[in-house]
Amino acid sequence: MVDSGENARRFTAQDLSFLGDRLAARFGARFSTGQALRDQHASVLTWLPPQAPDGVVFPESEAEVAEIVRLCSEHGVPVIAYGTGTSLEGHVNAPEGGISVDMGRMNAVVAVHAEDLDVVVQPGVTRKQLNDYLRDQGLFFPIDPGADASIGGMAATRASGTNAVRYGTMKDNVVSVRAVLANGEVVSTASRAKKSSAGYDLTRLLVGSEGTLGIITEVTLRLHGIPEAISAGVCPFATEKAACDAVIATIQSGLAVARIELLDALMVRAANAYSGLDLPESPMLFLEFHGSEAGVAEQAERFGEIAAEYGGGPFSWATRPEERTRLWTARHNAYWAAGALRPGMRSLATDVCVPLSRLAECVAETRRDIDETGLVAPIVGHVGDGNFHVQPIIDVDNADEVEACKGFLERLVQRALAMEGTCTGEHGVGQGKRKYLKAEHGEAALAAMKAIKTALDPKGILNPGKILPD
Amino acid sequence: MVDSGENARRFTAQDLSFLGDRLAARFGARFSTGQALRDQHASVLTWLPPQAPDGVVFPESEAEVAEIVRLCSEHGVPVIAYGTGTSLEGHVNAPEGGISVDMGRMNAVVAVHAEDLDVVVQPGVTRKQLNDYLRDQGLFFPIDPGADASIGGMAATRASGTNAVRYGTMKDNVVSVRAVLANGEVVSTASRAKKSSAGYDLTRLLVGSEGTLGIITEVTLRLHGIPEAISAGVCPFATEKAACDAVIATIQSGLAVARIELLDALMVRAANAYSGLDLPESPMLFLEFHGSEAGVAEQAERFGEIAAEYGGGPFSWATRPEERTRLWTARHNAYWAAGALRPGMRSLATDVCVPLSRLAECVAETRRDIDETGLVAPIVGHVGDGNFHVQPIIDVDNADEVEACKGFLERLVQRALAMEGTCTGEHGVGQGKRKYLKAEHGEAALAAMKAIKTALDPKGILNPGKILPD
Repeated sequence: MVDSGENARRFTAQDLSFLGDRLAARFGARFSTGQALRDQHASVLTWLPPQAPDGVVFPESEAEVAEIVRLCSEHGVPVIAYGTGTSLEGHVNAPEGGISVDMGRMNAVVAVHAEDLDVVVQPGVTRKQLNDYLRDQGLFFPIDPGADASIGGMAATRASGTNAVRYGTMKDNVVSVRAVLANGEVVSTASRAKKSSAGYDLTRLLVGSEGTLGIITEVTLRLHGIPEAISAGVCPFATEKAACDAVIATIQSGLAVARIELLDALMVRAANAYSGLDLPESPMLFLEFHGSEAGVAEQAERFGEIAAEYGGGPFSWATRPEERTRLWTARHNAYWAAGALRPGMRSLATDVCVPLSRLAECVAETRRDIDETGLVAPIVGHVGDGNFHVQPIIDVDNADEVEACKGFLERLVQRALAMEGTCTGEHGVGQGKRKYLKAEHGEAALAAMKAIKTALDPKGILNPGKILPD
Repeated sequence: MVDSGENARRFTAQDLSFLGDRLAARFGARFSTGQALRDQHASVLTWLPPQAPDGVVFPESEAEVAEIVRLCSEHGVPVIAYGTGTSLEGHVNAPEGGISVDMGRMNAVVAVHAEDLDVVVQPGVTRKQLNDYLRDQGLFFPIDPGADASIGGMAATRASGTNAVRYGTMKDNVVSVRAVLANGEVVSTASRAKKSSAGYDLTRLLVGSEGTLGIITEVTLRLHGIPEAISAGVCPFATEKAACDAVIATIQSGLAVARIELLDALMVRAANAYSGLDLPESPMLFLEFHGSEAGVAEQAERFGEIAAEYGGGPFSWATRPEERTRLWTARHNAYWAAGALRPGMRSLATDVCVPLSRLAECVAETRRDIDETGLVAPIVGHVGDGNFHVQPIIDVDNADEVEACKGFLERLVQRALAMEGTCTGEHGVGQGKRKYLKAEHGEAALAAMKAIKTALDPKGILNPGKILPD
């Protein structure tokens, strides 16, 4: 169904054998070619065919990552950075073979600068691990993709999540990175100053480059103070369109909502079943407000007025931390909940993002398309950013269903592009969306991206077969 | 005092003559080689020696810009994009000769998408022109360098200003750009979606590239709703250190101040004289709060408590729009006010930025250095971001004074770098700060920047002698 890259290997069995001997000599038990481990390091969360690497190595320092890249480069063998393996577009697959570099052991919080609201972490730290670490200091890191992903992987894929509407994405919350380039050199992209005009923005170039320009070995992140007051709630609507219109009006009013998420009726049903909620099975907004006690109350009241204009309500407010946690855990488990709608079938989570003004229209057309195509495909999304997910659950052994789903996905992306949107708001390109890059960016921009890739990785050893189409 | 690039021309008089003929034939009176016009298009706002281009052309469309770049490329002649000429580090100088491309006639607001909070503009639109245009719709664009700079120039230099502490810099407020690359191709860097994970971040690569990677021909900007309530005020402190400590405490408390600016006593004196204010001549914070009526009052009260802890006060609050405008006009005219302290002398405005926790220390050491060096050099800054300016006013005919100032500037940058800061928070590199780039970024990062430059501009015709050291 997608172009997942050729399996053409540009290195010989002898290259690989030499490299394996050198990695084994250098890293001992931290290098393995065992089949089970290799299979674990291929893309297993999606319906994309897994393509296992030829070996897996577990570095414990930046210097070791540099050494691995230099060794692989000498033998012309690809290097694929691996965080938690929770990406959804085949980012960690090895279509041309190569060595998976598992950053899981580089999981230290290096330094918290509470007074500067920043933290320096190794790439294997996960978002939950980081927030557990920070909690006592009254600080938090807001970016929250569904999975408990690693910070390195989140930076590499320009991840976002439910809080992005207020706090931005990884693009906005990465202060600087350290990374090993294809030549084995280590770059540090920026100082800890909050802003700078000193030279090209290598930070933002590496954020979202999906391991194709460098392997991130350290990340400095912006932090935020845990708000004095948080309130969350759910608000049902008669239709997805009414919910989207309420979202549009909320954002346009300047209300600084911290989270505003849409679940369609099917996703609410899935969440009820999977997470033990008892919400009415209609399109639903999940909301959260951050601020002072008075500020949160003011925001909630204003949102209530807006929702009522679109026939939404009644609200259920969850001000107790346990209730809030229950709601947001259910939201974060949406991927698994949706999958459970058809046990044993494959989930095909995809995302697009459009300008907010087109959101209601895009969701409504997508709903119509799902129904006409006859798919089981719940919709859930970070609608405050114009970003939503569709998750068809399909029987991959049913050729008709696969074909129908293929057509639906094509139409979804073309619809988003026609509305001045993007083929992916936050999942990234990986293998699954390479074919849309030309339509989205045009020949000249794509040529510029390829020129940059070639300049920084002339041998093409860093995560080949990802982002850029052939 | 600085390495302003060699004057070595890589093209012959014949190249230039042929090119001139072709530009004259194509653009008629919109191309000129008159000396006065050429001199106007060299860097005249700073003490850097002006280096006039060989000709100036005034395109009226993106297609014309592409045509100019192609013609210049054919003859190997540099192309220097020109906005309003208000940059401070020699960005528009032509050290290797070449053609200045004045974007002043491309000054249309192309489209306002109020419902998406974005606007599409041509690069010659200035920030004041844009805000005048937007006011009726209840929207504003917050980035405000001192000068009424063009949006294209602001994007190219990654400008910021007084509102950056709340609204971010050009990095955060540019949604996408269209640009002509060195090969004459036009790229569009991103869709209008609020976020995307689709490919390399060409937007952020062009923002801050100072015309060395492409010439920006259109910019899509994020807009913000004009706040329901705005209050501004000034608060004197006994010392700069006390003022900085109050700033640090304010930001750390999570107070979402919209503006928090430091003027040292000398700058207050200059502003009083130049802008007819009558502020006490002591270190002073200028502040502004945006929000709801209740929110603004709450913020002001909390700031008052913090300031008092550091001995600051009394406040003078200016809630009437005219009073506010008077204060902020005085702040924006600080460059001219400072210059008027020594009429006929040269202003040497420079800026650095450090992590907030180091701000008080950095300003205090800089104050001591100014006093010991015996310079007339007011300090003013966007201290909420850890960013401050020093503006020595020097007699360029006095070799001792020039030498003393040179030493001071070196120490200022080294001090900022030693404190994990940057050699420029917002002015950019241009010619003046090329020599610091290696110390700030290191060999490997600089090599990566050069590789990108070479990949996208192999002939080196786009604004040569800027950003990257030789």
